[in-house]
Amino acid sequence: MKIKQIILASRPKGMPDKDNFKTVEITLPELKPGEVLVKPRYLSVDPYMRGRMNDAKSYIPPFQVGQPLEGGGVAEVTESKDAQFKAGDLVMSTGVRPFLPWATAAIFPGGDLRKIDSSIPPTTYLGILGVPGLTAYFGLLDIGKPKAGETVVISGAAGAVGLLVGQLARIQGCRVVGIAGGAEKVKMLTDNFDFDAAIDYKGNPDMSAAVATACPNGVDIYFDNVGGEISDAVITHLNFFARIPLCGQIALYNSTEVPIGPRIQPIMITRSILMQGFTIGNYATRFGEGVKYLSELIKAGKLKYTETVEEGFELLPDALLGLFSGKNSGKMIVKV
Amino acid sequence: MKIKQIILASRPKGMPDKDNFKTVEITLPELKPGEVLVKPRYLSVDPYMRGRMNDAKSYIPPFQVGQPLEGGGVAEVTESKDAQFKAGDLVMSTGVRPFLPWATAAIFPGGDLRKIDSSIPPTTYLGILGVPGLTAYFGLLDIGKPKAGETVVISGAAGAVGLLVGQLARIQGCRVVGIAGGAEKVKMLTDNFDFDAAIDYKGNPDMSAAVATACPNGVDIYFDNVGGEISDAVITHLNFFARIPLCGQIALYNSTEVPIGPRIQPIMITRSILMQGFTIGNYATRFGEGVKYLSELIKAGKLKYTETVEEGFELLPDALLGLFSGKNSGKMIVKV
Repeated sequence: MKIKQIILASRPKGMPDKDNFKTVEITLPELKPGEVLVKPRYLSVDPYMRGRMNDAKSYIPPFQVGQPLEGGGVAEVTESKDAQFKAGDLVMSTGVRPFLPWATAAIFPGGDLRKIDSSIPPTTYLGILGVPGLTAYFGLLDIGKPKAGETVVISGAAGAVGLLVGQLARIQGCRVVGIAGGAEKVKMLTDNFDFDAAIDYKGNPDMSAAVATACPNGVDIYFDNVGGEISDAVITHLNFFARIPLCGQIALYNSTEVPIGPRIQPIMITRSILMQGFTIGNYATRFGEGVKYLSELIKAGKLKYTETVEEGFELLPDALLGLFSGKNSGKMIVKV
Repeated sequence: MKIKQIILASRPKGMPDKDNFKTVEITLPELKPGEVLVKPRYLSVDPYMRGRMNDAKSYIPPFQVGQPLEGGGVAEVTESKDAQFKAGDLVMSTGVRPFLPWATAAIFPGGDLRKIDSSIPPTTYLGILGVPGLTAYFGLLDIGKPKAGETVVISGAAGAVGLLVGQLARIQGCRVVGIAGGAEKVKMLTDNFDFDAAIDYKGNPDMSAAVATACPNGVDIYFDNVGGEISDAVITHLNFFARIPLCGQIALYNSTEVPIGPRIQPIMITRSILMQGFTIGNYATRFGEGVKYLSELIKAGKLKYTETVEEGFELLPDALLGLFSGKNSGKMIVKV
C-alpha cells in the first residue's frame, strides 16, 4: 500500500522554513499478526517540536533527517490483525514515545495503541486532556503553587497551555494577567476567557510599564511560555518569594546563537525567587491525577477551550511554522 | 563617653572604595535603667553588605548615609543597668536586625542581647553557628537536596559558606568540586578540606573544559556564590533535574549596569533544572534545627573551619573591600 509521509529534509539554521520538510511516497508492507493499520485523523503541532528539529541533547530524541516527523495525534483503525481493535476505532499511541508519524497511514503493534472514548470530541485528547492540559495543570499547581489573592502573569497566554493556565489560576482565586500578541487575542483573553487584564506585547513599546499597570500588587507567579524580552519585563516586577514555572521559550527557539539578556540571578536572590524548568514527561507517573482533575472541571462546565484547526495533510509544515508567528489561538491541530 | 564610629560617607558607584567610609567621633549618653554598654570585640564582614550600601529594595534595609555600618558580631559588656548582664559577659544582638554597629562602643536595651557560651570560641558564632553555617545548611539541604553519589559544584568554595557546603555535601556522600581563585586556595580545598577536586578560575582560561574534566558525570547541584562567567561555565554541564541554590553573586555586586549574559531559561527547560534564590532570613523559624545539626557535627569533630582575622577597628573598611578581591579564606572577621 502506497502512503505519503512528510520527512525532515534538513535541519533548520535559525527560523525553519518549508525547505526543511519534504513529502515522500513509500510503500507499507502487509500487516503481520498482532499489527494494526491506522490513518492519522488529527495531528497536533506544538512548540516543543522546534527543539526536536535540532540535533541537540534534550528530553526527547531529535527528529532524524530522512525520517517522518511525529507528534501527538488521534488515528482511525482501518485494518486490524489484533483482536482488540476493529476498523473505525479511534486510537492514540501509548508507545515509549506516544506519537503518530506525519503520514497518511502507519502500522503499529496493537499493544502500542489504546482506544479513546468516542463520546468526547477527539481533539480534546490533544488539548485539555492531552499535553497542553497536563502541562498547565502540573506547571501551575505543582511548581507555581498559587494561593488565593495572588497575581499570576502568563506569557503566550492565548496559546493552548496559556488559556488553560489562566482559567486554572482563576479557579484558584488568583488575579490573572495574560500577555499575547495583537488586539484580537488580548480581547479574547478578557472577553471570552475571563482574564482580569491582558497586555498586547505588539502594541506596547514599554512592556515593563504595561506590566506595572496591570499588576498593581506585583507578580507572584510568572508562567513563562515565551522567554526573551517579554520575560525581562515581567521579572523586574516579581514579588518576594515569587515562582516561575518555566514552560517554554518560543521567542528563543529559532536563535542560531546563544541568546543574551540581563542576568536574573541577582534579583532572584534579593527577592528569594524560585524558577523551575519542566517538561510534562517529568509527571508521567501522575498523569492520572491531572486527567481526573481536568475531566471534572470539563464536566462541570468550568473550562473553556479554543483550537485552531487547519485541514489537509500537506498543511502540517505550515501549521508548525505558524506557531512561531503566533498564527494560532489555543491548540493548533491539523485535520488529515 | 566619646567613641568612634565608621559611617557610610557616600553610596558607591560600582566598586566601593575607602572614600565611601568615614570615621567620626561621637559622645554616647549616660546609661538609662535597663540599658547595657557593650564594646564590639569581633565584627563580621560579609558579601551581602555590598547590597546594603546601595539604596535598593532588598530583604534588609540599606545602610543610611551618615549612619554607622552594622553587621554580625560578638561584644563584651563593659557596664550594665540590666540585672541579667554584668561586665565581662560576651553577648550578641537579638534585635529585629541582629547586628552590632561599626563602633568602639554602643548602648543596647538588655532585652536585645543574649549571652553566648564562653567555652566555645566566640568567632564560632559568626561562622559555623552563625550566618555562614546556617546559609550552607539550608541552601544545600533544603534547596539542593543532595543524594549520595551526586556531584556538587561550589563556586566561591574557599569562602566561609563554600567551605561548609563542601563538607556538608561530603557528609551526604556526594562528589564535591570547588571553584576558587588562586593555587593556594585550590590546594587548601583538596588538601585540608577533602574536596574531591578543585578548579582555580584564575588559572583556567577555559572554565567549561575544566568543569567537564572535574565532573565526568556532570553536575547535579551547583551551589552558586559568585555568578557571572564562572556560573556560565558550570551551567552548561548541569544534569537533568539539577538544582541551583542561588546564594550569592559576588562577581556582579559591583556592576553599575544590569549585567548581561547568556539566557539560561532554555537549558533549564530542556534539562528540568530548578534554581532558587534564598537568603538566610527565609529560614528564621528553623534556625534551631540548623544550629542543632551543625553543633552535633562540631562536637563529633566532623567540620573543619578556617577564618581570616584582621585586627584593628580602623581596618573594617579594608576587610569588607577585601572580600571583593578574594583576600579571605573562610570567614572574614575583624577583631576590634
